[in-house]
Amino acid sequence: MRHEHRLTVQSYECDANGHVNNAVYLNYLESARVAFLRGAGISYRELRERGFGLVVVRICIDYRSEARMEDPLLVVTEPLKKRITGGIFSQKVYREEATGPRMLADAEVTWVCVNGRGKPTRIPAVLDLASLDPALPEGTA
Amino acid sequence: MRHEHRLTVQSYECDANGHVNNAVYLNYLESARVAFLRGAGISYRELRERGFGLVVVRICIDYRSEARMEDPLLVVTEPLKKRITGGIFSQKVYREEATGPRMLADAEVTWVCVNGRGKPTRIPAVLDLASLDPALPEGTA
Amino acid sequence: MRHEHRLTVQSYECDANGHVNNAVYLNYLESARVAFLRGAGISYRELRERGFGLVVVRICIDYRSEARMEDPLLVVTEPLKKRITGGIFSQKVYREEATGPRMLADAEVTWVCVNGRGKPTRIPAVLDLASLDPALPEGTA
Amino acid sequence: MRHEHRLTVQSYECDANGHVNNAVYLNYLESARVAFLRGAGISYRELRERGFGLVVVRICIDYRSEARMEDPLLVVTEPLKKRITGGIFSQKVYREEATGPRMLADAEVTWVCVNGRGKPTRIPAVLDLASLDPALPEGTA
Repeated sequence: MRHEHRLTVQSYECDANGHVNNAVYLNYLESARVAFLRGAGISYRELRERGFGLVVVRICIDYRSEARMEDPLLVVTEPLKKRITGGIFSQKVYREEATGPRMLADAEVTWVCVNGRGKPTRIPAVLDLASLDPALPEGTA
Repeated sequence: MRHEHRLTVQSYECDANGHVNNAVYLNYLESARVAFLRGAGISYRELRERGFGLVVVRICIDYRSEARMEDPLLVVTEPLKKRITGGIFSQKVYREEATGPRMLADAEVTWVCVNGRGKPTRIPAVLDLASLDPALPEGTA
Repeated sequence: MRHEHRLTVQSYECDANGHVNNAVYLNYLESARVAFLRGAGISYRELRERGFGLVVVRICIDYRSEARMEDPLLVVTEPLKKRITGGIFSQKVYREEATGPRMLADAEVTWVCVNGRGKPTRIPAVLDLASLDPALPEGTA
Repeated sequence: MRHEHRLTVQSYECDANGHVNNAVYLNYLESARVAFLRGAGISYRELRERGFGLVVVRICIDYRSEARMEDPLLVVTEPLKKRITGGIFSQKVYREEATGPRMLADAEVTWVCVNGRGKPTRIPAVLDLASLDPALPEGTA
């Protein structure tokens, strides 16, 4: 599943450099992952109320161009890998421009499912979605 | 008790206007209240683990002058009123300048103690500190 | 003009108490004011590029009920007063519930227009919008 | 140069999971880099006022253990590489425990120096600090 999440840069998300602070992109990525789950019929809040959590264990992000206040952004989220207890998402942040989307940042986010004691655990059935499977590479299957 | 809390403005706390965003002052005030409690021997984290919370129900804040990156700030916290279930703090934010502190913001923060279900409750003995009593006005007692 | 702005509570906006942190409401109010201006045909970013800024000088906010992750919120912004160099907005934050909107917070935000040196200045023609005029009370005019 | 920066986890930095949100670690890393520069005699604010900026172009961060409210943290910053226009920092976040520091996160942060138009530029003399040189590996020189 390729999921699109749209948002607008807020004034308070820009820092003393005048552009969106590097940490704020991680907020954008988190919003987009929660929206990805919601799009697949999963409420992260309910998941937590059932005793599960999804925890980020690794992020690699390349910042390619800056975003500014009121910029219309598009975050594209796609599963790259799925494992027993978690997986890896590809997440790309674009600015929507007249000539098409322009990539601002490009990230890989590794996550694990944890139980109520914060320990990694097998992805529960409710989360074991086809939408978390990576697309098959061309030529396979 | 008059409590002093010092901090330095961080780059990511400044917004597209180049100065500390108005919402960030509320973070400063919260840090200072937690430090106030710590100075009185109370860990807010332990308080929460014992099932209590301190919830802000009203803030009035006047912004008098702007703060910029790397400014050394001083937050002065003093109790103004104490009630059965809460109280009011006066909190003032100053920048420390060569000629003395300059006031940047001036707030009154009304708080209540809540129990595990989020309902207002009588301040527990552990929190019923002399340090939460307002200073007596001159001429009384 | 009565302006409505909708948003969803993000996971990273909730604090150690499990609900939206008090400072985050000021972010919501700022988003809603920027959207109010945009709805009136004004880009805050362009306004700043022309050398003007809108600065908050006072906020009084009552927190009435808590918001949690994924809550759908509605921020209603209305002008209360207009002066030569600024004005006062009423801003109310509601959660949209099946039975109708429930008020979570209620604020008055006083703002001034500043020039490039940060000094209060007469509201420029571009900003001198009918939409900034408070509605007339019933029975007047 | 190996630089140590100490800070305390704030209540508003914890998210709905009860621990420090992944994005907040990037704030900690930024605070530590600014403190690193300050320790080397450089004010980042003055650097910006002279027309230079330091921009993060890549972050890889592994989250190993969670931090909670009021945890005392230590961020250790060391240069890993220096190039004509920038470099790479190693930054590690520890919690200070009775038995010694425990690593919570481990990051590599790639930065470039930019000029007033945001274009990568040769590191200016004022910034060309011996403290930005990586330590020589043992056995060299």
